[in-house]
Amino acid sequence: MAYKKRARPTVAECVDGILSGDRILLSKAITLMESQLSDDNELAVEILDQVMGRTGNATRVGITGVPGVGKSTFIESLGKYVTGLDKKLAVLTIDPSSQRSGGSILGDKTRMEQLSHNPMAYIRPSASQNALGGVALKTREVMLLCEAAGYEVIFIETVGVGQSEVAVNDMVDFFLLLMLPGAGDELQGMKKGIMEMADAVAITKSDGDNIKAANRAKAEYQNALHLFPSSESGWYPKVSTCSSIQHTGIKEIWDIIREHETLLKSNQHWNKNRGLQNLQWMHEHINHALRKQFFQKEYVKNELMVIEERVRKGEVSAYRAALDLLKSLHL
Amino acid sequence: MAYKKRARPTVAECVDGILSGDRILLSKAITLMESQLSDDNELAVEILDQVMGRTGNATRVGITGVPGVGKSTFIESLGKYVTGLDKKLAVLTIDPSSQRSGGSILGDKTRMEQLSHNPMAYIRPSASQNALGGVALKTREVMLLCEAAGYEVIFIETVGVGQSEVAVNDMVDFFLLLMLPGAGDELQGMKKGIMEMADAVAITKSDGDNIKAANRAKAEYQNALHLFPSSESGWYPKVSTCSSIQHTGIKEIWDIIREHETLLKSNQHWNKNRGLQNLQWMHEHINHALRKQFFQKEYVKNELMVIEERVRKGEVSAYRAALDLLKSLHL
Repeated sequence: MAYKKRARPTVAECVDGILSGDRILLSKAITLMESQLSDDNELAVEILDQVMGRTGNATRVGITGVPGVGKSTFIESLGKYVTGLDKKLAVLTIDPSSQRSGGSILGDKTRMEQLSHNPMAYIRPSASQNALGGVALKTREVMLLCEAAGYEVIFIETVGVGQSEVAVNDMVDFFLLLMLPGAGDELQGMKKGIMEMADAVAITKSDGDNIKAANRAKAEYQNALHLFPSSESGWYPKVSTCSSIQHTGIKEIWDIIREHETLLKSNQHWNKNRGLQNLQWMHEHINHALRKQFFQKEYVKNELMVIEERVRKGEVSAYRAALDLLKSLHL
Repeated sequence: MAYKKRARPTVAECVDGILSGDRILLSKAITLMESQLSDDNELAVEILDQVMGRTGNATRVGITGVPGVGKSTFIESLGKYVTGLDKKLAVLTIDPSSQRSGGSILGDKTRMEQLSHNPMAYIRPSASQNALGGVALKTREVMLLCEAAGYEVIFIETVGVGQSEVAVNDMVDFFLLLMLPGAGDELQGMKKGIMEMADAVAITKSDGDNIKAANRAKAEYQNALHLFPSSESGWYPKVSTCSSIQHTGIKEIWDIIREHETLLKSNQHWNKNRGLQNLQWMHEHINHALRKQFFQKEYVKNELMVIEERVRKGEVSAYRAALDLLKSLHL
């Protein structure tokens, strides 16, 4: 990465830059936050400390769906609509399969050609860290930095096939699931549980010959969703159809997101959710750090593979194996 | 608890007792396993080590549903059927709201009056430990002890409203969700995600005036379930109706459980699932121990409440708060 060869910006430079909406300094701060070097992280968290008062004002939307559902064009279309309302939009993408690299960044920008040239939009792929349990460990912090830089709407995009959706659901206000018109065609690749997390399902590609199938899918999902437990917030998931190419149904989806926000702000669930998410996130960071430290111990590193194999086969109980590994901690 | 006042049984006594199917010594070993005293746990894990070779042969079934769905009578009815097939049945109940006490044990036995007098059945409430993340932390180990004592079918019953269902889903082969005939009536109290975990939904109380509603609910759930992602194992969730009072539909549910077992054993997913569950359980124990140790540190105990409140309000970032607390570890 070219950036590493240049001098680090100072904390004060980044803070000033972020608060004045400077995209380059925002990007540099994000790079420090996502860095594997703890010195970089130290700077990043100091930056975050100083801009915390300016965070929390965005509408945070998670968007997911299997490959082929048309996420990029949908995000371009919804993004165009949102920026057209004079709102600054940040799009954070999480792709667990791609390593962080120039290629990946370029890839995401090419995928969202129009948005990437839109001065109101900022696109940033999230580094998927390889550490244990660390899928997009810093996405929440990246989101906060974007909020401090004045972005009023945040889209967090995931692929919809892995574990990252649960993590993303825990950091957004609204979780949008994109589905294809042939209801159920893409289900094979999807993780269980994603459907029940959705605040809304949008049936994509509802144009031309697809319209009939899309409407049928809409009816089926509506029937299915009313069999799910409702949210504590009193929100009932909505189903909608749209076409990113014809730009139809896009406004309606944004209206649903706003309606949800209005409801949750009126019944105090907005802040309650945010508070619980904050707490949960703190515990995630703690768990991650404790596990990281533990699995780096020499004894654990040396024994883990053999012990795991025995546990998998049921030769030794999970409890005994855990106790054995934990002995190295001198509890 | 009266037991504590008596002498502990030795490891050898417990091992012999369990392997010969002695219910009193099985119960004593379980009490040692669930004890909060690490000396007791030490004995329990030695017992478990020695009986591991005799574990793993039961069909493990999780049964959940909100209060009022008729779990006790359903379990009595299915339990009667299963023991009638000459299979030894252990029923482990997890109630996060009840503290472990003579009252609770008595309560469960009264709830399942017939089963509690059935010599082929063993009923045991699982202590819901109050430790962090420790809901029924030892239920898996209790299950293994029951298997070693010759129980061929294990029911693990949960209330269906909390987090314990996810944990239970991770320790059973088959997850059965009980629902009332008025489809959706009980959804308000249910946790999101439970529906998608179900290997089968059984509509209870399908008798008398309820039969029509139960059949309608069955059709609705069948439609809804086909919109869910299917299991990796190739199993498609089934929906069935039953009446615990009239003992109708009970055999059919047991047949579904057997059909599932036959499929998964034929395509190797049975052992694959068990192996993954074992590994996951080891990591749960490790996580629990690491967190327990961490949250017992003086600095963390003193600071946690104040820090959590600031994090909840968004005054300090989750990341900074985690770093501050972790400092006491001298990472």
